[in-house]
Amino acid sequence: MIKMFKSQPNKHKHETFFREILDQLLLGAVFDGIDRSAPVLRWKNPDELSKLISLELPKKPQTLEEVKEFLLNVVHYSVKTGHPHFVNQLFSSLDPFGLIGQIVTDTLNPSVYTYEVAPVFTLLEMELLKEMRSIIGWEKGDGVFCPGGSFANFYGISCARYRFSPDIKEEGLSGRKLVLFTSVDAHYSVKKGTFLLGIGTKNLVLIRTDKQGRMDPTDLEMRIKESIDKDLEPFAVVATAGTTVLGAFDPILPIANICSKYRLWLHVDAAWGGGALMSQKHRWLLRGVARADSITWNPHKLLAAPQQCSVFLTKHESILQDSNSASATYLFQKDKFYDTKWDVGDKYLQCGRRADVLKLWTMWIGKGSEGLEEHVNTLFDVAKATVDEIKSRPENFKLVLTTPEFVNVCFWYIPKRLQGQENSLDYNENLHKIAPKIKERMIKEGTMMVTYQPLGTRPNFFRLVYQNSELTCHDATFFLDEIDRLGRDL
Amino acid sequence: MIKMFKSQPNKHKHETFFREILDQLLLGAVFDGIDRSAPVLRWKNPDELSKLISLELPKKPQTLEEVKEFLLNVVHYSVKTGHPHFVNQLFSSLDPFGLIGQIVTDTLNPSVYTYEVAPVFTLLEMELLKEMRSIIGWEKGDGVFCPGGSFANFYGISCARYRFSPDIKEEGLSGRKLVLFTSVDAHYSVKKGTFLLGIGTKNLVLIRTDKQGRMDPTDLEMRIKESIDKDLEPFAVVATAGTTVLGAFDPILPIANICSKYRLWLHVDAAWGGGALMSQKHRWLLRGVARADSITWNPHKLLAAPQQCSVFLTKHESILQDSNSASATYLFQKDKFYDTKWDVGDKYLQCGRRADVLKLWTMWIGKGSEGLEEHVNTLFDVAKATVDEIKSRPENFKLVLTTPEFVNVCFWYIPKRLQGQENSLDYNENLHKIAPKIKERMIKEGTMMVTYQPLGTRPNFFRLVYQNSELTCHDATFFLDEIDRLGRDL
Repeated sequence: MIKMFKSQPNKHKHETFFREILDQLLLGAVFDGIDRSAPVLRWKNPDELSKLISLELPKKPQTLEEVKEFLLNVVHYSVKTGHPHFVNQLFSSLDPFGLIGQIVTDTLNPSVYTYEVAPVFTLLEMELLKEMRSIIGWEKGDGVFCPGGSFANFYGISCARYRFSPDIKEEGLSGRKLVLFTSVDAHYSVKKGTFLLGIGTKNLVLIRTDKQGRMDPTDLEMRIKESIDKDLEPFAVVATAGTTVLGAFDPILPIANICSKYRLWLHVDAAWGGGALMSQKHRWLLRGVARADSITWNPHKLLAAPQQCSVFLTKHESILQDSNSASATYLFQKDKFYDTKWDVGDKYLQCGRRADVLKLWTMWIGKGSEGLEEHVNTLFDVAKATVDEIKSRPENFKLVLTTPEFVNVCFWYIPKRLQGQENSLDYNENLHKIAPKIKERMIKEGTMMVTYQPLGTRPNFFRLVYQNSELTCHDATFFLDEIDRLGRDL
Repeated sequence: MIKMFKSQPNKHKHETFFREILDQLLLGAVFDGIDRSAPVLRWKNPDELSKLISLELPKKPQTLEEVKEFLLNVVHYSVKTGHPHFVNQLFSSLDPFGLIGQIVTDTLNPSVYTYEVAPVFTLLEMELLKEMRSIIGWEKGDGVFCPGGSFANFYGISCARYRFSPDIKEEGLSGRKLVLFTSVDAHYSVKKGTFLLGIGTKNLVLIRTDKQGRMDPTDLEMRIKESIDKDLEPFAVVATAGTTVLGAFDPILPIANICSKYRLWLHVDAAWGGGALMSQKHRWLLRGVARADSITWNPHKLLAAPQQCSVFLTKHESILQDSNSASATYLFQKDKFYDTKWDVGDKYLQCGRRADVLKLWTMWIGKGSEGLEEHVNTLFDVAKATVDEIKSRPENFKLVLTTPEFVNVCFWYIPKRLQGQENSLDYNENLHKIAPKIKERMIKEGTMMVTYQPLGTRPNFFRLVYQNSELTCHDATFFLDEIDRLGRDL
């Protein structure tokens, strides 16, 4: 009798089971499943879906056939984030090189802390992090892979705090009055970081932005001075390269000058915009980034690596080790026969962790850095084409920024009923309700997925975000036509 | 011409490329590659390995054939953590259900924050977390998946701090004197948590342990009183269920009584030992766990799910939302057409994250909870057999704990030269050097992988850890024979 509970129940059965699922998975989720003619999602509300997929965790094992059916059902009802018409989030597409690199990683199931348990992954990580630092313009430094951009930002704030006052590691924040600065349009992880790290949200100062959504350096300097006058301790600025909604790039150079003047750590959250560094044509957006002390860069965003590939990099060579090491002797023995500088784990906040390097590495060698550059350039081109297309339809569409800097294209859809009503009192209130209604119809039909949100005093608007270099101008036209079709009668 | 940089360069080529790699991957890393007759690793030092795998990130794309060769080379030189003779870390084995669940997840490439982008994963997560809470003995509560047990412990400390003083979220720790308690044998992430969270390592009080490595409740209460006398603010205790080295279980019931008395949050770090809750026979080890406020439980450890599957659970229904939400309007819109209680993302510290639920879900339905129980019972049986085998070889082997509680089997190997020398002055110093030497030979031969470490005043000893239910008593014999073979002449 085959004991199904075992770690390796039966090689023959297991192999057949595997191959059958892989065959249908390739079809349903990698090839035909993400073709433009297939739906992006098959919407079911939570109650319906609970009946369509089996939500039972049984006492007795199910048959292999039942397990297979369940998994294919999961595939059927899941959103196809690799579909070209999934432009809803700051990640998308299903890169073939990235995916196979990920599957190889899963099959090897490594965790990278010591060289001996993950020799290949250790070398690849070191090399890739070095290459990314060199693209930023740093000759030396250090870096870690993170479980997402939020944690990379936490590393940034934490390193800044350590640099400002190393004794906080031991003493804690008791009696300190640390203050952090970022723009009103920064990612919400900066705020989450302040409460996780014990700094407190009231000690996060939000700097105002200009019309394009970029941090205002004059306001920044004024607020720093204010803090000093109040006897507080400014220690760092988090600038954003590619804000979440508008895709704005804070002006790094003037911010860096202010940071130098007041001796503040400059962390650049380039989770979203970091990929632009791969393009000679567009990297000017991050001009001055080499002046930063640290950076968050998520290749799973603009470079379209699979979830997750998120990196924290710093120009300071020893700070990750100094600020994070706990020197656990059961893991980081020093009496080894090889040089333990190759045991990188102690500079991480995580202990066990998934290896995120191989998927990006595989993409890099499969495309070359030139290919990654072309990928990025293509995204900018399609965004530009979308902007032009929106401008050519002024009755129905209105851009939030007439000249967006990045691949975020934000716009309102204006149904006939509201056209020419801009000056009416309840115009904004009415417009605010349009996007959610179109979104509901869009999701229920499953033809595309794009997000909407308000921002400051602006009513709800749509935001297209491009990371899938399979997209063309035809898709841009499709997106606008589809929104028009869904919203015309509203 | 095929544009290789695109997100979907060419379906036909891509499919062929995929299938070829998958075929060889199944062979090299899933079937023959982790057979007992194959090596656990093919050791190369960093310099050698740098020459054997190509460490270049090229400008120009490589051919598909070259990419394939590279990936198979990565497989060849990587440690086979799924091999039954990899007993080096607190994770191992390559569960077929877990692996296919992971591959399906990768192919769908989801990130779980809103129901609309991840409907199936959202429902599975909610259900699985509920089932795990119910196994602990909690009727209500909440939970999150974490990027590893360290972060789950950070969640525990952070929730405890919020419960103790919700205003710290806004005000920060300035002026506070928080104190946290854990045992000297606790995982090092508790220490990392205190500096990340701004509490400071000097405010972490380490409680002494008994001979088995369990926290001493009398010492705990004394130290709490001392803190109160010093006008400090004790807020939480982190107990461990399954310590990293000895596999000890802190006595939860008496600790819970003390926590109730002094109104402290009790977090149980059961990252390693949580899996024992699946077994009616062994769950007594965590007796009283339902009295805890929160728990860390890593199914990627004892239950052998793929890296990573790590969970933080709490009995307090709203605390994750209260302590972690930042209410970003661009992600968590409230004007949706479905009930936004299904948008779970804002209670997480992460924003984008990998979905870790499906691999465990697939294991659960493939084996049933009965199968998971048998898996756990098997590990205890093999550990017991190993202890008996060690006792039957008293000349060469000596147990660190004569009756270990868990599946950690810790022992010294004593080569002939040191036998009968226990009373000599430099005995411990000599014994300390034995394990590293055997480990070096073991790694270079690649026949097995087991870790060693010192602990307190104890010299280096080996620690076998069992998570692979493919293991039998024969493997236990193999481990001891192999260590004897490698160390006999030392």
